[in-house]
Amino acid sequence: MSNLFTLSSKLAAQLDQELMGPKVGFTLQQLMELAGFSVAQAVQKEYAIDDLNKNKKVLVIAGPGNNGGDGLVCARHLKLFGYNPVVYYPKRSSRTEFYGQLVKQLDFFNIPILEESDDWLQYLKPEQTICIIDAIFGFSFKSPMREPFGKIVDEVSKIDNTIPVVAVDVPSGWDVDEGPTSETYITPSLLVSLTVPKPCSKHIDTAKTSHYVGGRFIPNHFAEKYGFKTFKYQSTEQVMKL
Amino acid sequence: MSNLFTLSSKLAAQLDQELMGPKVGFTLQQLMELAGFSVAQAVQKEYAIDDLNKNKKVLVIAGPGNNGGDGLVCARHLKLFGYNPVVYYPKRSSRTEFYGQLVKQLDFFNIPILEESDDWLQYLKPEQTICIIDAIFGFSFKSPMREPFGKIVDEVSKIDNTIPVVAVDVPSGWDVDEGPTSETYITPSLLVSLTVPKPCSKHIDTAKTSHYVGGRFIPNHFAEKYGFKTFKYQSTEQVMKL
Repeated sequence: MSNLFTLSSKLAAQLDQELMGPKVGFTLQQLMELAGFSVAQAVQKEYAIDDLNKNKKVLVIAGPGNNGGDGLVCARHLKLFGYNPVVYYPKRSSRTEFYGQLVKQLDFFNIPILEESDDWLQYLKPEQTICIIDAIFGFSFKSPMREPFGKIVDEVSKIDNTIPVVAVDVPSGWDVDEGPTSETYITPSLLVSLTVPKPCSKHIDTAKTSHYVGGRFIPNHFAEKYGFKTFKYQSTEQVMKL
Repeated sequence: MSNLFTLSSKLAAQLDQELMGPKVGFTLQQLMELAGFSVAQAVQKEYAIDDLNKNKKVLVIAGPGNNGGDGLVCARHLKLFGYNPVVYYPKRSSRTEFYGQLVKQLDFFNIPILEESDDWLQYLKPEQTICIIDAIFGFSFKSPMREPFGKIVDEVSKIDNTIPVVAVDVPSGWDVDEGPTSETYITPSLLVSLTVPKPCSKHIDTAKTSHYVGGRFIPNHFAEKYGFKTFKYQSTEQVMKL
């Protein structure tokens, strides 16, 4: 347990709402673009492409909500960085037209998108895959996990980090405030907290898990309102190692 | 005149329309966020903050269209990078609600936004200002320049690059295809071409002007359709020096 400042699931939801509310005026499209980009940048820092892995895949598992949307954006930026992402998106969001557009963008980049019935397990092999992006559930997750996600998390946990797993904001299966309390959950090799770490991130094993913060889009006065200071990102970096 | 590949104003408009059309599915909000970010990154590379200039301003002059929108996004990222941007936005766009939201975001970051009648000339002094961002007109510009922009461009050109001027995509007053043919125009110290250089960029004096490309958001097959190859951006960089 570290001394890291964390923001509860309740306050994180409030902060998010305020950012996209009438006073601040951010749109989901803007924030998701920056969040997804920041996760892709963290992946590049921890799992760079080299001659040995350049033909391998990155498996992006996208959940049904905004965490999944961050994953879809991340996949596109990874492709631009030279990776070969494959997206597993079993329950497509129909929340807004924008989710359909994110999928179209992936098609445009010739990024394969697997349906629920497709064979995604073939990518759970270290000789196939550089890393797995867990963009299944984020700060609004409440247990129990709906299927097929319980089964998916179970399959990923069974490979026991023989392929590194990158969790977007909250490792799936973890309670946002309490950490890994459920039966099945992801143990990330890399956690990218968005805007500010959530309480569950105090439960990562810092000897085994790298922890970054990303989503560089708030001014300090706004952070202070929620009890923290903005992170000291270097130069134009969109992530910072904690 | 260099051997640089360039895309005509007509084809640039077509490419842009296609990117945001029903097949590709990008939204203006996404592309503008990435474009504005890339310009801010180029500014940081050429005019980094140091102890001597950290209290100076960056004057962002935003035009009435999408080039102006790129400038508004750029200003916000510059603030996040530690700069003190001041935005001069004499003719606010009422095209879509999103432009109003971009202005709100600047308010949220406490970035001053000058109206047409405000004293923007006070920032045309080297002891006050690190650089000027010319986000007035882009690839859809057709002469003659409407006022107040003719007068603004004239004032900026008169300071004769005693403050470096950063042109977003097309230096204002330049014909997109022909270059500096009008009576009054910007001579940039830094040109950031978006997606691909426009023909006018062949007329920059490469001894005096740095040239970058930014807006890293298309796959190679799409570039090839328009006759070029995507640029070899390094790592997660959003700009590349040409």
